[in-house]
Amino acid sequence: MIDRLAVIGVGLIGGSLARALRAAGQVGEIIGCGRSQENLELALELGVIDRYAQDPAIAVRDADIVFLAVPMGAMRELLASIGPHLATNALVTDGGSVKNSIVADARVAFGCMPPWFVPGHPIAGTERSGVGASFPELFRQRRVILTPLPETDPKATARVRAMWQATGAEVSEMTVAHHDEVLAATSHLPHMLAFGLVDALTRMDCSDEIFRYAAGGFRDFTRIASSNPVMWRDICIANRDSLSAMLARFSTEMSDLAASIRDADGEHLLEVFARAKAARDGFVDGGKSLAEHN
Amino acid sequence: MIDRLAVIGVGLIGGSLARALRAAGQVGEIIGCGRSQENLELALELGVIDRYAQDPAIAVRDADIVFLAVPMGAMRELLASIGPHLATNALVTDGGSVKNSIVADARVAFGCMPPWFVPGHPIAGTERSGVGASFPELFRQRRVILTPLPETDPKATARVRAMWQATGAEVSEMTVAHHDEVLAATSHLPHMLAFGLVDALTRMDCSDEIFRYAAGGFRDFTRIASSNPVMWRDICIANRDSLSAMLARFSTEMSDLAASIRDADGEHLLEVFARAKAARDGFVDGGKSLAEHN
Repeated sequence: MIDRLAVIGVGLIGGSLARALRAAGQVGEIIGCGRSQENLELALELGVIDRYAQDPAIAVRDADIVFLAVPMGAMRELLASIGPHLATNALVTDGGSVKNSIVADARVAFGCMPPWFVPGHPIAGTERSGVGASFPELFRQRRVILTPLPETDPKATARVRAMWQATGAEVSEMTVAHHDEVLAATSHLPHMLAFGLVDALTRMDCSDEIFRYAAGGFRDFTRIASSNPVMWRDICIANRDSLSAMLARFSTEMSDLAASIRDADGEHLLEVFARAKAARDGFVDGGKSLAEHN
Repeated sequence: MIDRLAVIGVGLIGGSLARALRAAGQVGEIIGCGRSQENLELALELGVIDRYAQDPAIAVRDADIVFLAVPMGAMRELLASIGPHLATNALVTDGGSVKNSIVADARVAFGCMPPWFVPGHPIAGTERSGVGASFPELFRQRRVILTPLPETDPKATARVRAMWQATGAEVSEMTVAHHDEVLAATSHLPHMLAFGLVDALTRMDCSDEIFRYAAGGFRDFTRIASSNPVMWRDICIANRDSLSAMLARFSTEMSDLAASIRDADGEHLLEVFARAKAARDGFVDGGKSLAEHN
């Protein structure tokens, strides 16, 4: 049970966490914080938060748990601004998509990695943003990764784990570096491909016509290109080492594929497509098993 | 009204056309043809076809319209085998994803481009295959592109147009070359990216873990990697010129993006992502308008 939860950044992720904990009866009061007063008023109206403060230093006062859900590029300044105002028993966690950068930000802001800061990342989302897009079931049967450091208090990690479990999520732990590699592969690279594809087509002469004749496969494939550009700019920069490595790996894969297409090497194409299909079909089956398990 | 329709290849596309025309009351008898007797028996059982022949020469006998829905690589031989057995008033059309190759196949099989052959392509499908995946609404509010040649009889084109309109599709015409360029951009390239991404991840050391932590975005993004490998091998080879050009264009786009990520050039990243998001959001709105229009 959380007496008082402060959510800094009441968007899709922050709003959905607030709604999920409220629905589970696991939270007393919820204080929202953010730059857009309009969004905070909407959050109040929707019952997602009980009250708000636009100053993070005020929002975190007397909170048991502070959840940070702002773009990665805003984290360092935010951490520095809330540090002196946290309650003595407070713990802080976040929902950022890259963990090495927030750990670096925390070290800069606090001069060390504080035992009460638990880096985390819910692997959930939609391409929409803002509190209006939030819903209490967002994390149900989804994975949440926590990346505690040697300095992190295991009791703080356990409390953050319990918070996420109350939303219906399955919680795992891994190292910061490993998290960033896995996410570069499964999330950051696919987003780059979707943004890059849509941008490349947009810049073609007959782009209007191209979009007119696109079918359902294209719609699904490019859904993630509708994601928040600022958030993704920050993710790319924060995770540029792992993402650059994945982009290079993918570039090699596509050069091979392009050569096989140019040479009409049907045998190699069939091999690649069949291997990909088997893996993707297996991934979907695996996903079903997880859903059934929960 | 079609008295007798021969469907060569009773899979997702062929089966759905048969079901749609039957549902619209636009067809008398439907004869199926294909290599898998099991699939044809299933088609019979499901009421998709009235009878079948495994020999195309027999299946097309006395048919008004012959619809070819086999992988691109099987078209040339198929055209040659049915040619001598077509009824005098018969017309032939197809559902292949690449038009230059089937036109070349027809020229080889018949020594000229026959006036009764109307190349076509329904822009519809799912990642599943076989008659069990077919359904009568597949083409509703979807686009069908016909690519008639100077040699094509306009009356034949009009009959094929009417056939597709009866399924609820919106029919357009364009040149063979333009069709192949547009499809390389909107369909063939995205499929290569999905196959290439899944294959690249599959070949990584920690691929099991990568798939375990993939979220909904990854599932949507890679859905088309579950498509039929043989069909896609044939599409790649048939459209290798246009597809190679699109792969090169995309490679340049991704090299630029990779450089911006490596250099942490937030301004350029934001510009690309914002442009892509605007185009993709506009595409979705455009799709809605089409659906409302129909």
